Amino acid sequence: MLSSTHITIVGLGLMGGSLGAAMRGRCARITGVDVEPRAVAVALSRGAVEHGTTNLAEGVADADLVVLAVPVRASLRLLEELAGTVRQPLAVMDLGSTKRDVVTAMAGLPANFDPIGGHPMCGKERAGIEHADARLFDGAPFALSVLDRTSPKLRGLAEELVDAIGARPLFVDSERHDRLVSAVSHLPYLLSGALMRLAEAERDPRVWQLAGPGFRDTTRLAASDLTMMLDILATNRDFVLSHLSLMRSHLDDLASAINARDESALASLLTAGRDRRSTLFQRRPKEPRHDPSLWPGA
Amino acid sequence: MLSSTHITIVGLGLMGGSLGAAMRGRCARITGVDVEPRAVAVALSRGAVEHGTTNLAEGVADADLVVLAVPVRASLRLLEELAGTVRQPLAVMDLGSTKRDVVTAMAGLPANFDPIGGHPMCGKERAGIEHADARLFDGAPFALSVLDRTSPKLRGLAEELVDAIGARPLFVDSERHDRLVSAVSHLPYLLSGALMRLAEAERDPRVWQLAGPGFRDTTRLAASDLTMMLDILATNRDFVLSHLSLMRSHLDDLASAINARDESALASLLTAGRDRRSTLFQRRPKEPRHDPSLWPGA
Repeated sequence: MLSSTHITIVGLGLMGGSLGAAMRGRCARITGVDVEPRAVAVALSRGAVEHGTTNLAEGVADADLVVLAVPVRASLRLLEELAGTVRQPLAVMDLGSTKRDVVTAMAGLPANFDPIGGHPMCGKERAGIEHADARLFDGAPFALSVLDRTSPKLRGLAEELVDAIGARPLFVDSERHDRLVSAVSHLPYLLSGALMRLAEAERDPRVWQLAGPGFRDTTRLAASDLTMMLDILATNRDFVLSHLSLMRSHLDDLASAINARDESALASLLTAGRDRRSTLFQRRPKEPRHDPSLWPGA
Repeated sequence: MLSSTHITIVGLGLMGGSLGAAMRGRCARITGVDVEPRAVAVALSRGAVEHGTTNLAEGVADADLVVLAVPVRASLRLLEELAGTVRQPLAVMDLGSTKRDVVTAMAGLPANFDPIGGHPMCGKERAGIEHADARLFDGAPFALSVLDRTSPKLRGLAEELVDAIGARPLFVDSERHDRLVSAVSHLPYLLSGALMRLAEAERDPRVWQLAGPGFRDTTRLAASDLTMMLDILATNRDFVLSHLSLMRSHLDDLASAINARDESALASLLTAGRDRRSTLFQRRPKEPRHDPSLWPGA
C-alpha cells in the first residue's frame, strides 16, 4: 500500500520534483537523491521531498521503492550501480521516455530487485526542479511496462501511485510502447525542431513577429531538454528512423496534391486526421486526486 | 476615428463573430452579414453584432468600413460582387490568411473603394460563430498589408482597430507576408495533418491513449477548418511547396544524424531552435484592451 511505502526519488529535475510534490502526504516517506546539492536543497525547500541527499547508497538504504527520474541512459547506469551495491529487497521503477533498453536492464537485475518500467506522458518546455509542478501529471497517460518478474504487489503499488498523482495508468509492453511513443512523442519533437530551423532559415526578423498561437503550439516541444531527447533518440533509433521515413512520404503525398492542384486528393489526406483530432482530447483532463494546496506556489 | 465608424462584418464565423465581440462598444455601429440566417441569428443573440442581415447590399449600404471575414477565395468573390454593386465611398479590409491574391484584387477595385489587407494570426481548432471569443485576438500578431492606394486615414483606422481588439499591428507587404506565414502557419498545419496520419497508420488504439500534451499541442492545427485551409494552400502554393521541400531536407538531415549515431551533429541541428523557442513567446500576451465583461459567456 502506498500509504505505508517509503519512496526514494533519484533525480530531482522537472519529473522527480513534480512526482515528489504530487505524492506529498500520500506515502509514508519521500526521500530525494540528486548529484547536484542545489537540486536537493531546492526540492527540500519547496517541500517536494522530506529528506534529501547527494549520496545514492544512503538515499536508497531504507527505501521500499526507488523511482529513477533521470534520462534513459542515466537510468541504465543507475540500475548497474544499484545492482552492484544494494543487497536488501528493493522495488524499482523508472520514468524514462523509452522502455526497451531499461526493461532489458531490469530483467538482468539480481533477485533482490522487483522492477517495473514507467513513463508519464507529460512534460514542460522547461527542465529543472524550479519548474516542478504537482499538477504536471493531471490527466496524463502513464505507461507501465510489467516484466515477467514484476511482483503482483509492485504492479498494484505502481497503479496506485499513478492514480494518486492524477495520471491514467496504461499497461503496455516495452516494444509496443517504444513504437507508439515514437509516433506520438519523438516524431512531434523532431518536427518541432525542424520547424524552428525552417523559420530560422528565412533570416527575417518579421518571421518571429508573425508567429502566432499555431506556431507556438506546434513548436513547443522544440524547447525540450536536449540531453533527455538525445537519450530518447539513441534508445529508440529504429522506430524513429522508420517513422521519419513514413513522415517524409506523407509530406511527399501532400506536396504532390498541392503541386497538381488536386484539392480532392488534398482533402482526403487531411480529413481523417481533422476528424480524429477534433474529438481526441475531449475526455481530458480527469479530476486531479491530489490536493494542489499542498504544493505552495504551483 | 473608430468610435465614429460604422463597421460591417461579412462572414459571421469564428473570426467575424470574435471580431464583432471584441469591437463591441468601440465603434459607432456593428452590422453583420452572413449567407446563413442561423449564423446571423446566433451573432445577434450573443451580441457579437448589433444589426444583422443575409443581404450583402443591405448590410454594406451605410457602412464606413466593410471587413471580409471569410476564406480567401470567398473574399475574392465578394470583392468582385462589391465592385459591381457599391457606388458610395467604402473602405474595405479582409481577414484572409494569404494576402497576395486579395491585395491584387483590391488594387483593381473601382476608385470609390479604399482597401487594405489584414490577417489576424490566431485561430481555434473549432470553426463557427458558436466558438467566437472576444479574447481570440489578445496578444496575437495582426498583419496589415497597405496598398499604394490605401488612404492614410484607413491605415490609421486599421491600426486603431487592431489595437482596440488587443492584437499587435504589424505592417508587412503581401509577398513577404505570404512567404513568412507559409513558414509559421501553413507548414505547421501540414505537419500537424501528416502527424495525425502517421499515428493513424499504427492502427493501434493504444496510440491514442498514449498521446499526451506534446502530441495534443503539435497536432492542434490538424483540426483546422478544411475549407479555409484548402483556400490557403491554393493561394500560397509556390511558397508552401518550397517550404515542404525544405522541410523534407531538414528531416533528411535529422535521419542521417540519427542513423549515423552522430549525436554532436544531431545536437547542432536542434540546439539553435531550442534556444530560440525557449525565449520566443515570453513577451506575450499583452494586456487585453477590450472589456471581457461585454461578451457574455466568453
